[in-house]
Amino acid sequence: MTALTVDLGARSYDVILERESLASAGEKLDLDRRVLIVTDAGVPAEYAAAVAAQCRAPLLRCVPQGEGSKSLSVLETLLTDMLRAGFTRGDCVCAVGGGVVGDLAGFAAACYMRGVDFYNVPTTVLAQVDSSIGGKTAVNLGGVKNIVGAFWQPRRVLIDPDTLQTLSPRLRAEGLAEAVKAGLIADASLFERFEAGVGEADLEDVIGKALRVKKTVVEADEHEGGLRKILNFGHTIGHGIESVTGLLHGECVALGMLPMCSRPVRARLLPVLEKLGLPTRVQADPEAVYAALLHDKKMGAGTVSAVFVDEPGRCAVREVPPESLRPLIREVAAP
Amino acid sequence: MTALTVDLGARSYDVILERESLASAGEKLDLDRRVLIVTDAGVPAEYAAAVAAQCRAPLLRCVPQGEGSKSLSVLETLLTDMLRAGFTRGDCVCAVGGGVVGDLAGFAAACYMRGVDFYNVPTTVLAQVDSSIGGKTAVNLGGVKNIVGAFWQPRRVLIDPDTLQTLSPRLRAEGLAEAVKAGLIADASLFERFEAGVGEADLEDVIGKALRVKKTVVEADEHEGGLRKILNFGHTIGHGIESVTGLLHGECVALGMLPMCSRPVRARLLPVLEKLGLPTRVQADPEAVYAALLHDKKMGAGTVSAVFVDEPGRCAVREVPPESLRPLIREVAAP
Repeated sequence: MTALTVDLGARSYDVILERESLASAGEKLDLDRRVLIVTDAGVPAEYAAAVAAQCRAPLLRCVPQGEGSKSLSVLETLLTDMLRAGFTRGDCVCAVGGGVVGDLAGFAAACYMRGVDFYNVPTTVLAQVDSSIGGKTAVNLGGVKNIVGAFWQPRRVLIDPDTLQTLSPRLRAEGLAEAVKAGLIADASLFERFEAGVGEADLEDVIGKALRVKKTVVEADEHEGGLRKILNFGHTIGHGIESVTGLLHGECVALGMLPMCSRPVRARLLPVLEKLGLPTRVQADPEAVYAALLHDKKMGAGTVSAVFVDEPGRCAVREVPPESLRPLIREVAAP
Repeated sequence: MTALTVDLGARSYDVILERESLASAGEKLDLDRRVLIVTDAGVPAEYAAAVAAQCRAPLLRCVPQGEGSKSLSVLETLLTDMLRAGFTRGDCVCAVGGGVVGDLAGFAAACYMRGVDFYNVPTTVLAQVDSSIGGKTAVNLGGVKNIVGAFWQPRRVLIDPDTLQTLSPRLRAEGLAEAVKAGLIADASLFERFEAGVGEADLEDVIGKALRVKKTVVEADEHEGGLRKILNFGHTIGHGIESVTGLLHGECVALGMLPMCSRPVRARLLPVLEKLGLPTRVQADPEAVYAALLHDKKMGAGTVSAVFVDEPGRCAVREVPPESLRPLIREVAAP
């Protein structure tokens, strides 16, 4: 078992990483109360059922799979369910699933009665290494992702790597893209681990290392005022690609990282991505990607914050004119 | 001019209390950006127009008057408007009006892009002495008030007592009920001021004193973990009365305070309320009031937090069985 503490003063919390921990969730989380368990149709039903079985008063809600569930109307449904079931400030919400479920359930916890306890039980690599810690919760609005939400830290995060056994190879690979990112921006040894090859037996350790990177960054910049921007490495161009293709988030991050690396790092990153089965080129109109990038919410007035990696484990944030990203997009996207 | 600082560490902010300050809002608030100004149809249009005239890029939205505007659907409309107008994290929201507008606009600011700056320009006594500081924002859901929201502190509060000149005597009186409350729980000199009689010329001073009480309590307990409960003095029975009658919030607080005072204080409070034109008895079924009280969101499992005043300026919070409030309700409510 690995236990990390994300140190945020009064909002500190533990991240518990342990095989088979889902079966003993009741020992690790305070479930002796009303618990809204949110999962989605793409998550094996037995995971949420295992948590529900350990709650005194579970209220289980399964939302449709996909980004469409991150909406104000689904949020309203969850809040209404809590209200009807008599949830008080002392009750809680627990997400069991990937990033969509975590973002949605976390925001419900953030705003019900101005905030109740939130537990996150991520069951995908992407959520385990990245979205489950940091406190970013949100829903989408008007076609824009994550535009309505809150910074709301979980009370505890419970990661059971055994849940990854049911994950498709493609979903596993897209999640590992965020772990590769963590290595590139802040932990050279993690990146080297990927160069050596990551097998089934290494998963728990790789997740732990990636979590440590995220924890350190979040502790230094809880509300995304500065340093936290480095977590967006690969995401600027990545989000642009995500908007115009059907690729998964992590796949787009993989593509988005490549042009932001120095030549030598790029030469080392390419085989890492290929070994993981992640894309290194995409068929997409570079100008459409650029247009989508310009609409990205993280854009300031005249410049874009872009993160560059010149050697594994070290990165730099630079404010650049969006124009300067155009040739970089063309390095990974072609019609 | 009076300027108070609400000291909440990184979330500290100033409350500026100054006659004619609306006309120079641009000097006191940073309006050199996109500003969503939210007002309602009951607020004289010139107040919001005065603020808009001082913004670089104002977006003025007038919502219908009343609690009905505190809904997730009106919230969605405001957020969509901000999105379409290209609001970024550096832009802001400004409420111009009473508590409804402040609660709604404040919540929009809290959740747009996980939080943008919020200014509050309260134009009713109730909002000026009470709801404009403290950071409680919310909308209603399923017939329950303030069930969805956030603690989101304003960046600055600008109070222009001249805006009260257009307020009806009844609305003025209901607002002063909250100032009487502030005196009773924490400032005997403020209560004595009301005993001596509060005229037009005393308003600014009375507002300042009431604000100081609220500021002190909020500083000690930002997220309503304990002490802040004393601000609910008069609100437990008051909310019950509010649910079953057509009386205004402050009028119900006036009624709700009476039975929670010791006999001697009650004898002094009665003439104060009468002088202000506030009710001291109401025609309502006490059992209906009690049933509404039981549904109040502040109720824990088996007990209710109730605030009692034994002498002006001093109060005590006690956990009592709800049953014990039944005879107290009957002291102010009869069919």
